[in-house]
Amino acid sequence: MIHANRLRLFTERIFLAIGCSDHDAQLAADVLISADLRGVDSHGVARLPGYVRLYDLGRLNPQPQMRIVHESPSTAVVDGDRGLGLVVGPWAMQVAIEKARTAGTGWVAVRNSNHFGIAGYHALLAAEHDMIGQAMTHAAPLVAPTFSLEKMLGTNPIAVAIPAATEPTFLADFASTAVAYGKLEILQRKGQDIPTGWAQNADGQPTTDANAVRNGGALLPLGSDREHGSHKGYGLGSVVDIFSGVLSGANYGPWVPPFATAGFMSAQEGVGIGTGHFFGAMRIDAFRPADEFKAHMDTWINRFRSARAVPGQQVLIPGDPERMMEAERTTNGIPVVEPVVNSLNELGERFGVEL
Amino acid sequence: MIHANRLRLFTERIFLAIGCSDHDAQLAADVLISADLRGVDSHGVARLPGYVRLYDLGRLNPQPQMRIVHESPSTAVVDGDRGLGLVVGPWAMQVAIEKARTAGTGWVAVRNSNHFGIAGYHALLAAEHDMIGQAMTHAAPLVAPTFSLEKMLGTNPIAVAIPAATEPTFLADFASTAVAYGKLEILQRKGQDIPTGWAQNADGQPTTDANAVRNGGALLPLGSDREHGSHKGYGLGSVVDIFSGVLSGANYGPWVPPFATAGFMSAQEGVGIGTGHFFGAMRIDAFRPADEFKAHMDTWINRFRSARAVPGQQVLIPGDPERMMEAERTTNGIPVVEPVVNSLNELGERFGVEL
Repeated sequence: MIHANRLRLFTERIFLAIGCSDHDAQLAADVLISADLRGVDSHGVARLPGYVRLYDLGRLNPQPQMRIVHESPSTAVVDGDRGLGLVVGPWAMQVAIEKARTAGTGWVAVRNSNHFGIAGYHALLAAEHDMIGQAMTHAAPLVAPTFSLEKMLGTNPIAVAIPAATEPTFLADFASTAVAYGKLEILQRKGQDIPTGWAQNADGQPTTDANAVRNGGALLPLGSDREHGSHKGYGLGSVVDIFSGVLSGANYGPWVPPFATAGFMSAQEGVGIGTGHFFGAMRIDAFRPADEFKAHMDTWINRFRSARAVPGQQVLIPGDPERMMEAERTTNGIPVVEPVVNSLNELGERFGVEL
Repeated sequence: MIHANRLRLFTERIFLAIGCSDHDAQLAADVLISADLRGVDSHGVARLPGYVRLYDLGRLNPQPQMRIVHESPSTAVVDGDRGLGLVVGPWAMQVAIEKARTAGTGWVAVRNSNHFGIAGYHALLAAEHDMIGQAMTHAAPLVAPTFSLEKMLGTNPIAVAIPAATEPTFLADFASTAVAYGKLEILQRKGQDIPTGWAQNADGQPTTDANAVRNGGALLPLGSDREHGSHKGYGLGSVVDIFSGVLSGANYGPWVPPFATAGFMSAQEGVGIGTGHFFGAMRIDAFRPADEFKAHMDTWINRFRSARAVPGQQVLIPGDPERMMEAERTTNGIPVVEPVVNSLNELGERFGVEL
């Protein structure tokens, strides 16, 4: 167990060491530690060595000049200048929030960025301003569309944050796949099988092999197979890809760069510039008074939470599990697995920073 | 087989007979016939007797005065005045399109409406104007959230239409459930079992009983069970419900009125006014030049369509199956099952209109 503050300070110092400003290092660390606190371990400090590798490859700009390259009253396209997605994301969301103040809503497509951490972090930024926040991003291809043998889409998550009055903010934050790739990795390490419906093998057939995705197979879209709606998960992942990539002028589909080499790709390498995201902010009182809306959200949340449940279970509100995890880990610390601790210690030695 | 034109004319005349204007009768018939042509039989003329029943119950206003009750540069809330959702939907989408012309995007929440037919019809209206169209609606509760025994959400579909240059428009249009209820009804009629993952029984357990939903069970969210991501389908369906119901001032969750008695519900009966929808239009050139975007959409579509596929299959683009069906049925006619033909003939006799 490592206390969040210790992990946060270490992460900040690493980002400072590769040339980030104080502000950016603090923000980037906050996004990563937030993932660890909420239990999304795959998107937390485990990624820190990856960002440093990007920097080593010359594909990460630690001092990005983010700028709006196109806009209308309620929209903007932001160029992330190869900055950390962890920093580009909140900057773009701020543009969406400012647009929403005057136009009612704000919608920002981002190009020339890279991995932005957990989508929910960005969506929540709008909720603080009595706005509904949306954040989505594409990622390097791991997922086969229905009937495809080829990996064409990333896990392409989408997050929607909706504020309530006395209840905590509703936060749906999910990949458009049956499971996150991290769940396969856990079973790989244990040498165990995966359930069918998570992945297909190189022949496009159902598999229980936890290593299938590394051996020519692919993750399956949400819905798992055609009979259970995989074409819907494929459709959802496609919309995320098109909003993040085609609207913004980034790459898209199989051209989205892998995390470890993300950042700028010339038109020769791909079909656009770097990795993309898409953000939205809707001012609640552009629809109805915020107090009224939030009181109804309390009613919504309480009614769903009190639904009759399967014995021993409870109906949860999107965001509940992560919130419970955050409370627990804030108190008891974050369990960081040994390979991650080792990789952090290596970074620490290199930059003279103690974990 | 009944030719689409014959079905269309009949449907128009029934809507005229209950007091709709020429314009509204033609529009409403177009939405229904469009569903039949695309193969979404559950949302086509099979619903016509249901709309007439609504009228008989005094819960459908055939001469609605739709109006904007609240707005900002990029948003509006529309009151549907208990009109046909088939007519309210296109009216509200037109408001979204007009907003997008000046503000870049337009977002319209609707209350006091009822069943609006297929979501894709409305989303496509924006695509004609070089805009990305979105349409979603909630519906009466049939779906159990993860771990719930109670039906809390409708099948809550979402549609996104994205124009391309020479390729047909990308159209994702899907319910946030593993399957549409209509697929269970087909197997009920045949006396056959359903696959597990479609529904749960009254105890919240997996079932192959096609009648489970009628006997205290429920449809399952997209993802089917917790292990395969049902909490994601539940989250998606919840967002559709909140955008359609809570933002608009309509009912929401278990309070959404059933189709056959939809329309106005007083605050005593529910938590808002009637059924709600949510529409969006994003002007493509509020992000990047439309020609450039649409050329990249062609690339996107062609790359996905040419992905290596499982032998004997092909990777389809969202919207392909419905488009192929439409071409086939426009030529060969629409297969209307006997119970539906009988119910249409009953309507015909009552109103003196021949099918």
